[in-house]
Amino acid sequence: MFLRNCWYVACWSHELKQSMPLGVTIIGEPVVLYRRGDGQVVGLEDRCVHRLAPLSLGRCEGDNLRCMYHGLLFAPDGRCVDIPGQEAVPAKACVKTYPVADRHGWVWVWMGDPAAADDGLIPQSRSVDDPAWHFDTGSLDYLANYQLINDNLTDFSHLSFVHANSFNAGLNWALSRPEITQLERGIGVERWVIGDPVPPYLNGDFDTVDQYIRYDYLAPGILLLATEVHRGGTGERTPLGSPRPEPLFATFSPQAVTPIDEHNTRYFFAWGPRAVDGDKATAALMMQVARQAFNEDKLIIEAQQQIINRDPSRSVVPVSCDKGVIMFQRTMARLLREENPASAAD
Amino acid sequence: MFLRNCWYVACWSHELKQSMPLGVTIIGEPVVLYRRGDGQVVGLEDRCVHRLAPLSLGRCEGDNLRCMYHGLLFAPDGRCVDIPGQEAVPAKACVKTYPVADRHGWVWVWMGDPAAADDGLIPQSRSVDDPAWHFDTGSLDYLANYQLINDNLTDFSHLSFVHANSFNAGLNWALSRPEITQLERGIGVERWVIGDPVPPYLNGDFDTVDQYIRYDYLAPGILLLATEVHRGGTGERTPLGSPRPEPLFATFSPQAVTPIDEHNTRYFFAWGPRAVDGDKATAALMMQVARQAFNEDKLIIEAQQQIINRDPSRSVVPVSCDKGVIMFQRTMARLLREENPASAAD
Amino acid sequence: MFLRNCWYVACWSHELKQSMPLGVTIIGEPVVLYRRGDGQVVGLEDRCVHRLAPLSLGRCEGDNLRCMYHGLLFAPDGRCVDIPGQEAVPAKACVKTYPVADRHGWVWVWMGDPAAADDGLIPQSRSVDDPAWHFDTGSLDYLANYQLINDNLTDFSHLSFVHANSFNAGLNWALSRPEITQLERGIGVERWVIGDPVPPYLNGDFDTVDQYIRYDYLAPGILLLATEVHRGGTGERTPLGSPRPEPLFATFSPQAVTPIDEHNTRYFFAWGPRAVDGDKATAALMMQVARQAFNEDKLIIEAQQQIINRDPSRSVVPVSCDKGVIMFQRTMARLLREENPASAAD
Repeated sequence: MFLRNCWYVACWSHELKQSMPLGVTIIGEPVVLYRRGDGQVVGLEDRCVHRLAPLSLGRCEGDNLRCMYHGLLFAPDGRCVDIPGQEAVPAKACVKTYPVADRHGWVWVWMGDPAAADDGLIPQSRSVDDPAWHFDTGSLDYLANYQLINDNLTDFSHLSFVHANSFNAGLNWALSRPEITQLERGIGVERWVIGDPVPPYLNGDFDTVDQYIRYDYLAPGILLLATEVHRGGTGERTPLGSPRPEPLFATFSPQAVTPIDEHNTRYFFAWGPRAVDGDKATAALMMQVARQAFNEDKLIIEAQQQIINRDPSRSVVPVSCDKGVIMFQRTMARLLREENPASAAD
Repeated sequence: MFLRNCWYVACWSHELKQSMPLGVTIIGEPVVLYRRGDGQVVGLEDRCVHRLAPLSLGRCEGDNLRCMYHGLLFAPDGRCVDIPGQEAVPAKACVKTYPVADRHGWVWVWMGDPAAADDGLIPQSRSVDDPAWHFDTGSLDYLANYQLINDNLTDFSHLSFVHANSFNAGLNWALSRPEITQLERGIGVERWVIGDPVPPYLNGDFDTVDQYIRYDYLAPGILLLATEVHRGGTGERTPLGSPRPEPLFATFSPQAVTPIDEHNTRYFFAWGPRAVDGDKATAALMMQVARQAFNEDKLIIEAQQQIINRDPSRSVVPVSCDKGVIMFQRTMARLLREENPASAAD
Repeated sequence: MFLRNCWYVACWSHELKQSMPLGVTIIGEPVVLYRRGDGQVVGLEDRCVHRLAPLSLGRCEGDNLRCMYHGLLFAPDGRCVDIPGQEAVPAKACVKTYPVADRHGWVWVWMGDPAAADDGLIPQSRSVDDPAWHFDTGSLDYLANYQLINDNLTDFSHLSFVHANSFNAGLNWALSRPEITQLERGIGVERWVIGDPVPPYLNGDFDTVDQYIRYDYLAPGILLLATEVHRGGTGERTPLGSPRPEPLFATFSPQAVTPIDEHNTRYFFAWGPRAVDGDKATAALMMQVARQAFNEDKLIIEAQQQIINRDPSRSVVPVSCDKGVIMFQRTMARLLREENPASAAD
């Protein structure tokens, strides 16, 4: 069961080029995205009404999209407006349309009731085009259910074990706990990580650093992560909530987890420094580190999925680092219940 | 549900070499083909009675075929005639035999009731060995149900969209309709395509050509396609049914669609010119074009199958170019009902 | 249905290195093996209690194994002894343990009731480390059910057909029958093979040889095979049971068939000569021949499995060479019934 009344990240905005339709599958539904003549994004069901061929193999013609199997032409409102060699177009020759938004560098698709589509539910992220920052972007497909990736991202204590090498993460990530706040559609996580090894993208004569971490994790799977690197000792002097000194280095990372279907998930990520802290090359170096780390996640999560597949009846033993995991799982369960009041969601 | 009382193309005749058994799967059943000492084709169930190993990994011994797991030897009538190290051969040690025919350059297998096998149901094709013609041959496997390929081949309006590049097909294929005739076991399709671009395999100083097309599409999936290329203007002057002038270039293409099983299909095709119009090299050039085109079909049809798999309950919206598609679908449905009178075939 | 109260071969002992946990799947269950500080083997459920990640991606720490997802540490008795960042460890934070044994060069795992684990049920094999012999070892994965491999190894008449080239096996393997004895947990097979071609690993001026073969095949799938090569004529002079002369060449081959799950099987094998007959290079040459032969088995057995999958309802026609196959199948059925008295095992 998937949440439907929410915005899913379908692709990076720069991946959707003029005149090049793009087929994606979100929560099991084939969606084709393309840009009208003016660049505005259109989202249609990726399935021609005629013989169910994908429109994403089609051709953009002005504001419309032509199926390249037998030539039916569809307008942005989903109506078929031309059937080659035929005068009349039947009224039912219509594909479903999806509300879309092109914001913060991502194309978002609303998979639920179009009447309920609410732009206000798109998380307020920093755009990857923000000139005060430099971002590098990427994506990765998992052969795993999206919930395992949500679990991974709502508990950073795994950094000490999964990312000890790539992110040079110390044990403090696992040994102490963040403050976690319940949000309307997710959780807020805030903490100092004290005495961490110096991150690989930071030059300077330090033995250790303190990192201030703050992220929201929002339904259906949007991570908005701000990190500040401070001189060692800063964390102990600066309780959460009180003003922090100017950091040595500040980074931001927007990430998104989009279910392709029950068994496959696409993971989008960007990361980079403030323009005052680094440039495009810094962002590229950071992304090199992040790609290594995200492949470490992929390795353990896909293996975890295989173990679960061997016996899906196994239950888990919760531990204290699961606080955020469980809060977010409950948030998702509540949103699912709100969407499906009749069903006994668990 | 597959039609059984019909001839399926199993392979090209030249693919079945003396002393080399060949295993194929047709409508889900494993069949082994081999040649007796005199070259005659034998068709047996590809499954040894002893431990169900495939006989196609076996060895031809004169007219017989030996299983190379434990050595049981089978005669062309399916009876086991030798069990190494054992005197008596049990009467039930018998594999099923299939009626076969070696005709027009293809090996055909009758998958239904052997008593009903009727050579007269093998379509009257031109043989690929006909000395008045030059043919090149090929085959391609689809990860798709055979019906999608039948649909594709009973409606050539897709040429304007799928094969605009490979076959240099113009819009006329889609904009006007052929005459379609109901045949006993299929459909006959006839038309002029007026003002088409010059095909890539034709040299000569023409702006456009008119093509006269005539094909039968016969159960279970046999296409017999004759094409004549004429000077531009010929089509308008020459109604269907009246005598046509000598063409600039005439080609013939026999094709066959054989279900491997519900999800996989093998597609056989040959194409070539009259010997007066071209030679082996012309046929090879034409096949180069055709292979590109057939891979364009494979791309769209396999993608169509994937879209259908996402939601098999979706129905299609018929359009006017589907006339032949629907006539052939109904022909197949009628033949299936005739074979299975008790079942409520849809 | 798998036999549980028995020892399965999990890996070669030399494959399980100090500090390197190894994940294997046996009868569908994920098992992690690792060595304690003193080298003793530990077998645990390969599934962390916390979030079901595989412990085989974990880290050995002294006698313990740490999950490298969120850092839970497990002792050899399966108890979790450390949860990073948490004081108390819940009593239920325990993974299943498996009785293990490190014997004859193999690591064995008992998959059934631990209380019933009986070292006496480990077959008395010759160790691959025996200094009086030289062995080379290997393994191969089959995409096939383990029973097809048991069937293959309980009837060597297939050598005449499957291994005519690799093992240079003559027809005598198929034309005459061994003496087969019922054992408590398997069968004993003994025979002369008279007038066989000279094996490829034997130098000497012989036209043919006689081979004395003796093997046990024991539940769940352990083959212990002794071969003696004698001068031609020895077999006729030397009835089974009477003293044999010193062989020209003696070899031993321990083999094991371990179900990964219903559809996949791992096959372990070693082979080699007495130290008086050959050295490491001889064993390597023999293994080169054996690998070719075992790949011949893999080819026919995987093809057999594919044919069975096309119609699993097909029954087999037994022939006289199946005597050992059927005796072993009945032995397995009896052991299964003894383990599951309530079920009507077939």
